[in-house]
Amino acid sequence: MMDDMVGLAAVSLLGVLEQAYFSLQVIYARRKFSVSPPRTSGPPEFDRVFRAQANCAEYFPIFITVLWTSGVFFSPGLSSVCGLLYLYGRFRYFCGYSQSAQGRGNMSIIRDTRQNRLNIRFLRHTHTSNLSNI
Amino acid sequence: MMDDMVGLAAVSLLGVLEQAYFSLQVIYARRKFSVSPPRTSGPPEFDRVFRAQANCAEYFPIFITVLWTSGVFFSPGLSSVCGLLYLYGRFRYFCGYSQSAQGRGNMSIIRDTRQNRLNIRFLRHTHTSNLSNI
Amino acid sequence: MMDDMVGLAAVSLLGVLEQAYFSLQVIYARRKFSVSPPRTSGPPEFDRVFRAQANCAEYFPIFITVLWTSGVFFSPGLSSVCGLLYLYGRFRYFCGYSQSAQGRGNMSIIRDTRQNRLNIRFLRHTHTSNLSNI
Repeated sequence: MMDDMVGLAAVSLLGVLEQAYFSLQVIYARRKFSVSPPRTSGPPEFDRVFRAQANCAEYFPIFITVLWTSGVFFSPGLSSVCGLLYLYGRFRYFCGYSQSAQGRGNMSIIRDTRQNRLNIRFLRHTHTSNLSNI
Repeated sequence: MMDDMVGLAAVSLLGVLEQAYFSLQVIYARRKFSVSPPRTSGPPEFDRVFRAQANCAEYFPIFITVLWTSGVFFSPGLSSVCGLLYLYGRFRYFCGYSQSAQGRGNMSIIRDTRQNRLNIRFLRHTHTSNLSNI
Repeated sequence: MMDDMVGLAAVSLLGVLEQAYFSLQVIYARRKFSVSPPRTSGPPEFDRVFRAQANCAEYFPIFITVLWTSGVFFSPGLSSVCGLLYLYGRFRYFCGYSQSAQGRGNMSIIRDTRQNRLNIRFLRHTHTSNLSNI
């Protein structure tokens, strides 16, 4: 049983490293935009990095719980693979959110392949109609 | 041993679903009160929903840790039942807090049965005396 | 295997108790500085206590994940000892941050023994040169 769990443990530790990376980004953003603790708000660029990290940290225990529950009771291999996809999605989410609030939507991997087509459609749409406040 | 743990796993996943429900309520509140990310403050109605979700998310890893530690080392059955009661309490807390800051106190189930009596007493008290700022 | 895990479970529960202590400190700070929920900002003294608790809560799931992963796959004893050191470090961090934003740096135990020497050097430095805004 322990051998099956190695993959889950590796994905968990990778998740921990990812969280550490996000935390470092917040520290860099604090320095860059001169937002010293305990303050948590500053220019929009800092706010986005801060919120991206906070959101990822909030979902980390949920991720770990689902990863291990599904890994132990269903399939360790499939859970590990899904866990890796989730971590990759979170990374894209963090990078996207850091650049713009709309970039949060980049978490989906499926959307990744369709993104260009959607962007073109969206640009056409904005040219032909006025967007109401979503 | 695995059979005993099914209850704990089920309660854990129920907890995850509950957190997902709370997160959805924040998304709905963001739309309703037009508070777009990365902003985290808005009208008091939004602030209450946001803080209720944040508080529940903060206690989720503690809940999972206590649930599994007590489940594995003491009694899985009793832990599962206590876990269910906790999740029910959190649901009441979230609903209460969303409506008013005083509604947070609704987490206790025992208080539930005494609530009407207390409300009556409280109303009498406010009629007969001036409340100092608590 | 279960016997080896008792230490990890004990450290986990100690971590839960520590988080409970931090949460109580926030409640006391809310009363002391009259910052009623859902507000999360007030005088700097309150902000520091609030942020110290939020930071510790954010790292709690990471701590639990690393504790158990290293405990199960490497050494339960060494993990428990490192976990205890982490919890002590967090306690010092919380106490230091509550007093001043610079006090956050107190988490390190190694720095502990060097603190006095560093303080003296720092005082000398501030006497002999003008500090630029760090």
